[in-house]
Amino acid sequence: MSESYIAIDWGSTHLRAWLYRNGQCVDNLQLPYGVSRLAEQTAREVFDKYIAPWRKQEAIPVVMAGMIGSDAGWQPVPYLACPVPLDELSSRLFEVAENVWIVPGLRTEQDVMRGEETQLLGAMQLSPASCYVMPGTHSKWVQVANNAVNDFATAMTGELHHILINHSLIGKGLPEQRDDSAAFAAGLQSGLESPALINKLFAARATRVLGDLQPESVSEWLSGLLIGAEVATLRGDTTQVTLVGGESLCRRYRQALTDAGIQAGEIAGDTAFQQGIRSILDARH
Amino acid sequence: MSESYIAIDWGSTHLRAWLYRNGQCVDNLQLPYGVSRLAEQTAREVFDKYIAPWRKQEAIPVVMAGMIGSDAGWQPVPYLACPVPLDELSSRLFEVAENVWIVPGLRTEQDVMRGEETQLLGAMQLSPASCYVMPGTHSKWVQVANNAVNDFATAMTGELHHILINHSLIGKGLPEQRDDSAAFAAGLQSGLESPALINKLFAARATRVLGDLQPESVSEWLSGLLIGAEVATLRGDTTQVTLVGGESLCRRYRQALTDAGIQAGEIAGDTAFQQGIRSILDARH
Repeated sequence: MSESYIAIDWGSTHLRAWLYRNGQCVDNLQLPYGVSRLAEQTAREVFDKYIAPWRKQEAIPVVMAGMIGSDAGWQPVPYLACPVPLDELSSRLFEVAENVWIVPGLRTEQDVMRGEETQLLGAMQLSPASCYVMPGTHSKWVQVANNAVNDFATAMTGELHHILINHSLIGKGLPEQRDDSAAFAAGLQSGLESPALINKLFAARATRVLGDLQPESVSEWLSGLLIGAEVATLRGDTTQVTLVGGESLCRRYRQALTDAGIQAGEIAGDTAFQQGIRSILDARH
Repeated sequence: MSESYIAIDWGSTHLRAWLYRNGQCVDNLQLPYGVSRLAEQTAREVFDKYIAPWRKQEAIPVVMAGMIGSDAGWQPVPYLACPVPLDELSSRLFEVAENVWIVPGLRTEQDVMRGEETQLLGAMQLSPASCYVMPGTHSKWVQVANNAVNDFATAMTGELHHILINHSLIGKGLPEQRDDSAAFAAGLQSGLESPALINKLFAARATRVLGDLQPESVSEWLSGLLIGAEVATLRGDTTQVTLVGGESLCRRYRQALTDAGIQAGEIAGDTAFQQGIRSILDARH
């Protein structure tokens, strides 16, 4: 077992890193240099400047997951094709410098992921289920059997919410938004009833004009609509899932899943990620 | 019959006006001063500067339709509630200056329109049907019986295409887009098969990453997907429609409707608008 190592979750917008010594996390940092925001630097330069000093003279293992393995990152790492047993991840790491490794992402015929595979590996150990829901900018619904990822699908829920509020007529001229559980629940119900969004999105505008939706609550209503549509679209015959993510988003998804009659366990995304990295390193020794 | 008048289609982004004398269109203009782009001017000031000179000393009638009747326009004009016979429009005009009139928009319990009602009135005379499809930024599907508008629904198709290409990961880093009827047809088929968009939008990204969609054809594929989803969502049991709109958009919708087994007549949006205005004026004399 590797007692000293560095774990890095290096996504599109941010890099987060944790330094472990003797099995304990002794330092961590978060930087705004995701692979889409490297600006003038290469990923290697960011690594040398901020991460390498943690290693001192030793080449302690560094395991990175996420968009750092895309063509915008350090080096493109081929996807592993589903179905794939996740215990293969440890033997399919891609070395980009001495003892510096990138975890490969996964693909299906039509979809791709990078980073979630590492969270999944951890979540499968800590909270076993046949379906994992990973809410976020691009939510993933992952089907698992016999420790292998069989299939997954991505919903653009978080990004769609962001661009509709910030760039469409729905968000135009809105006052500051507030928490509104009733508006969220109303949107949720609409999305769960039928996930055909294209005619419902305009309702966020029309019902506001008609006075049936408070302008301060549009963001909540839209969040409910989109999450409801996601659950209605991707649930299939699922009756039980494990949610993997941050607390606030998981709370919204828990309500959606409950309303849809789906039982949900939960594990924090960071916890799942740390367990995934550790498990990959353990398997190499 | 009014032989001399001014017709104005005054929307969010543009104002288009036509001067008729003795039944003939003798002048027209297009200005970038839609109600969301009035900048420092009021609608009245734009009118006085660009339209009033056409009237000379006579107060020839001016009939305006569109967002000019919204709270961002000249003056808010109440919506007429559906079902509403469109021959009522002529008696429900709203006067904002001497012989200067705004056509009221329509509403249902959940939806609103401003401007399309005038096109509809013209289209109902020139190309009778029980369902009108008006493609655009916010496409309208309108149900008509006995010359009354019973119901309508709005799909955010055009705006969704715009913000996805310009503000989401789907459009990020795309090269110049090209015409690609095969990509359009593939997107169309996907949208028609099932209008649940939330998981299909990411496919525009994933299939590009996987090499199954050419980066130059993303816009066409997405256009097909969204139009297909619109038709699948809003067609109900419709088997025959009249399309009202511009030539290029109508061509796309005609293909979608044909693929869905719906017969489509067609009338140009401008023709329908001119007929609508003329019909409103005729009814007042």
